[in-house]
Amino acid sequence: MKQRMPVVENILSANDRLAEENRSRLEAANLYTINLMASPGAGKTSLIEHTIKRLSGQLNLAVVDGDIATSIDADRAAAAGAEAVQINTGGECHLDAVMFQGALNQLDLTKYDLLMVENVGNLICPASFKLGTHQNVLIASIPEGDDKPYKYPTMYRGVDALVINKIDLMPYIDFDMEYFQRGVEVLNPGLVTFQISCRTGEGLEAWLTWLQKKVASHNPADTDR
Amino acid sequence: MKQRMPVVENILSANDRLAEENRSRLEAANLYTINLMASPGAGKTSLIEHTIKRLSGQLNLAVVDGDIATSIDADRAAAAGAEAVQINTGGECHLDAVMFQGALNQLDLTKYDLLMVENVGNLICPASFKLGTHQNVLIASIPEGDDKPYKYPTMYRGVDALVINKIDLMPYIDFDMEYFQRGVEVLNPGLVTFQISCRTGEGLEAWLTWLQKKVASHNPADTDR
Repeated sequence: MKQRMPVVENILSANDRLAEENRSRLEAANLYTINLMASPGAGKTSLIEHTIKRLSGQLNLAVVDGDIATSIDADRAAAAGAEAVQINTGGECHLDAVMFQGALNQLDLTKYDLLMVENVGNLICPASFKLGTHQNVLIASIPEGDDKPYKYPTMYRGVDALVINKIDLMPYIDFDMEYFQRGVEVLNPGLVTFQISCRTGEGLEAWLTWLQKKVASHNPADTDR
Repeated sequence: MKQRMPVVENILSANDRLAEENRSRLEAANLYTINLMASPGAGKTSLIEHTIKRLSGQLNLAVVDGDIATSIDADRAAAAGAEAVQINTGGECHLDAVMFQGALNQLDLTKYDLLMVENVGNLICPASFKLGTHQNVLIASIPEGDDKPYKYPTMYRGVDALVINKIDLMPYIDFDMEYFQRGVEVLNPGLVTFQISCRTGEGLEAWLTWLQKKVASHNPADTDR
């Protein structure tokens, strides 16, 4: 395997440089951006839908949706009321800074207050590719099981906030929340965590409040109001 | 992205050659082997546990467990009663033929009738790396959502059997089985499919019967008995 590593390192280093350029563009446009990562089916699109429906009265929202095929997720984001750009990765298992740059080119960045990026459903590869967003948010879900922090440490270590979705399924699944959170705490001490259910709406308030504060505190013009 | 492709193609071609070598070794040892792939938390380890507990009286079983970290899964397989070899991929998002070869080197292949390989939890990358196993089996799960065949077509197209796990959660989740199966049928017509619940045991008989038949029909000595 060792002969692959120099190639991989060069790709990652080039990616990081481009991620910094993306970040500078977002800063210049004063556009707060989060990168949502998760396993397939953990609830990225559902959380984005809820967030759009609840915040679109106060904030101008855009979504960049990464998928290896289809535009199902971007269609859902657009239907919920946000400007949505689809990236079909053509088989690639993650978004990278090049793809994200291509999506940014399709948006008038100054028009929006919050940009949500939905990464490809994958608990491994997206963790290695910075995009240039302000915050990395991981969505875990109860049916995935309580051992996931232990098994996917790189992802859990690298995120700025954690959303635990599908807590409405707790009665039907053997999920030890204490064991799960102990694993998270070792990897990412004090990580901001939200327990929610996109199905019932439980816990969404705390997430939305946190997100609004993040957008507002990032934008000096807003906090002055 | 284009400059990466020759490197990727060379890796895949080298991988395929080594997968053929692995397959020849398995054939020589008359060892039937399945490669279990799925999202994180879909139930690979649980299905392996059930299969070991139910078939270890009739068959000699071995398990190769791929994970990016920990030996949680191999420990569970060993506790259930099978010889288990752990591969820690060191961050890699899939098993490949080199890693699988390393695992085969740790087993006396002639001792076993069935080898189950648990791939890394990932619905994308493992589909591109042949190992040399006889059958690729995908485990889907109800909480992942009914749109997964549409969003991960390469994985659904490339497998020989599909296990739909966690059907006990159907009453609590919006999952349109007809829509899901229509997506599967387009990609992989006539795919052998099992609906099961590792939690309640529902549907496991059909899976076990199919697997036993596969092992038996692969082994001329067994079918002559």
